Amino acid sequence: MIIGNIGRGKKEINEDDKFNIILDKIAKKVNVSEGRRAVEDIIRIIFREQPISTKKIAQKTRLPLPIVAKVRAMLEREKILKRNKGAILTDLGEKLAKEYLKLRYRGSLICDKCKGRGIILDEFFKEILNKAEKYFKKRPSPNTLIDQSFATLETSVYRVALMCERGDLEGRRIMFVGDDDLTSIPAALTGFADEIAVVDIDERILRIIEEFSKEEDVKIKIVKHDLRKPLPNDLKDSFDTISTDPPYTLNGLRLFLSRGIEALGKEGVAYLSYSHKPIEEFLLVQKAINEMNFVISELIPNFNYYEGSEIIANTTFIARLIGKDLKPNIGDTEKIYTGLVKPVIRYYKCLKCGKIYKLLNERIEDLKCSCGSRKFRMVKREKL
Amino acid sequence: MIIGNIGRGKKEINEDDKFNIILDKIAKKVNVSEGRRAVEDIIRIIFREQPISTKKIAQKTRLPLPIVAKVRAMLEREKILKRNKGAILTDLGEKLAKEYLKLRYRGSLICDKCKGRGIILDEFFKEILNKAEKYFKKRPSPNTLIDQSFATLETSVYRVALMCERGDLEGRRIMFVGDDDLTSIPAALTGFADEIAVVDIDERILRIIEEFSKEEDVKIKIVKHDLRKPLPNDLKDSFDTISTDPPYTLNGLRLFLSRGIEALGKEGVAYLSYSHKPIEEFLLVQKAINEMNFVISELIPNFNYYEGSEIIANTTFIARLIGKDLKPNIGDTEKIYTGLVKPVIRYYKCLKCGKIYKLLNERIEDLKCSCGSRKFRMVKREKL
Repeated sequence: MIIGNIGRGKKEINEDDKFNIILDKIAKKVNVSEGRRAVEDIIRIIFREQPISTKKIAQKTRLPLPIVAKVRAMLEREKILKRNKGAILTDLGEKLAKEYLKLRYRGSLICDKCKGRGIILDEFFKEILNKAEKYFKKRPSPNTLIDQSFATLETSVYRVALMCERGDLEGRRIMFVGDDDLTSIPAALTGFADEIAVVDIDERILRIIEEFSKEEDVKIKIVKHDLRKPLPNDLKDSFDTISTDPPYTLNGLRLFLSRGIEALGKEGVAYLSYSHKPIEEFLLVQKAINEMNFVISELIPNFNYYEGSEIIANTTFIARLIGKDLKPNIGDTEKIYTGLVKPVIRYYKCLKCGKIYKLLNERIEDLKCSCGSRKFRMVKREKL
Repeated sequence: MIIGNIGRGKKEINEDDKFNIILDKIAKKVNVSEGRRAVEDIIRIIFREQPISTKKIAQKTRLPLPIVAKVRAMLEREKILKRNKGAILTDLGEKLAKEYLKLRYRGSLICDKCKGRGIILDEFFKEILNKAEKYFKKRPSPNTLIDQSFATLETSVYRVALMCERGDLEGRRIMFVGDDDLTSIPAALTGFADEIAVVDIDERILRIIEEFSKEEDVKIKIVKHDLRKPLPNDLKDSFDTISTDPPYTLNGLRLFLSRGIEALGKEGVAYLSYSHKPIEEFLLVQKAINEMNFVISELIPNFNYYEGSEIIANTTFIARLIGKDLKPNIGDTEKIYTGLVKPVIRYYKCLKCGKIYKLLNERIEDLKCSCGSRKFRMVKREKL
């Protein structure tokens, strides 16, 4: 619309067009499902909360950390932002935000009391959090090969509070379909459930829960089981509520929810913790949920936080699903873990001697450098 | 398990069995989709918050008011509860709650700051609430024949706050697909949106918005339009965000969302306010949403409250939908209003002379008794 100034003999394009080109270029380069919207989301969050860390941007935008890191680097190259104790907008960046994106609002409307969860912990649940802490400290390092990633203690207690508030805890028979988050521990500490069962493949996890159950003298049914196989018969059709935080693949979701359905029988409630996904993938997830005859009765983004697990930016949603005439729907039971569905080569640099290691199916936790160090930094990820 | 006492020469069945039979009987009689769970939900809410009004029970359980009223009456007949400034449990009811349903928790874990919405109003939005109030007071009586039912002023402001927080307000072009809730007014008062348009069939509503836009000197595009017909061409593919609170029928949802898609074009965000539905119906709703290529990125129950509209217990959810490669999917455009899909005869009693009136498609607001009174009480509803 506006004809640019004539500068140094060349016709310049106007500022809006320039910003438009930059954002389009970045959206295309990072190739994110949300496109331009993702790039704009990142700029908006920085505009509101600068200085802000890359991880916090990823949490707030619910975008994968590598995507945010890539966009941030490109915005830096375009002189839209700089780093000073976190990302902050340059004068040019402020101009883009205010004049081109027309951003006006600084700050946050997320409830500071419940952190957007809608649920709070009262004294009773705070006490449970304190009691549970010592068992959460005993957790080993997560086995990333089976997509383990440990929810924070607070997250697990909030989950139980949500179950309680919605009427899915008191007098209910609850099964944890996989429980590396140890959510069964605060659940058992309430003393509200009629029965609690935990099914997991990892003995290290089961041992902590067993120890807890002995020390606190509470009854938990602990079953070591590979969920790729059907549930043992005595666990079938015997529960009212299930809780699961499955591998974040479509097959992982279908498998874990289907085993949950075996536990519930024809009807019941499921608490599903799952990663915020790109639109196309998320759509498949929701269709799979509906196909089993589960309805999403609520979905709270950023409900769960995790220790470590940088890639998913340490936060996932929780959904409360209500099922009737439930039908299991199991896909390929072999391809349930992220590493098998989307193999990624990760390059790690030894922080002591600088040597580079290439990992595919190995866990960084098991790596020891030839110089003796165990401290590494990931320097690159590459899809196979 | 326990053999009952021998009383008055008869063998008694034990208390648990008795409670079981009562709950089953009630669930069967009210024929609610959620079955036993619905009856248990009602008892749990009374256990936690007694004394409590029928309307509040309906809000908390998200069950239709007539269902709750029916269950409450049956529980009263079974001497499980009595009324004393609201429903309270009898000794027998307390026994059922504590010993049979094993309820333990009294109180509520809903965040008292945000009322479970996860979003708060800061000073800026509180100011907007104050400014908007006078226009909300001008609303006429709702036309229930076209499923009008007015959201509270607070609800509309919270919706705008949610849009702002999620990045769907600032610099965005927003269309309200039907706006009897006047949400366009607080939206316009922020001054954050790039463009605001309202499409509605009701001139009374449009006139209030027009008056507002003149008095406050803000630009809103106001279009009188019957959404059963496609959007005018100049409104197509021109918006980033839509907001709608459609008729609570499957066809109503599909029609309003589809017109929203015409406004958005291939992608965009939709704020959908919609009634909590029985599982089977809710499942169809979610499948319809997914079929249009909208994904439910969050779903907050009890977000919206309404003035009047007793049947839906004055509360609905809001869902933020993100769409990509959007496809409209319009069903039967004639059967979009509740009264046409599920015709109901309502019987009203004149509070002055006692005369009974039978209403099908007529609105109670238009009724005047032969004795001159305009005050009535609904005494019965009957499905056709």
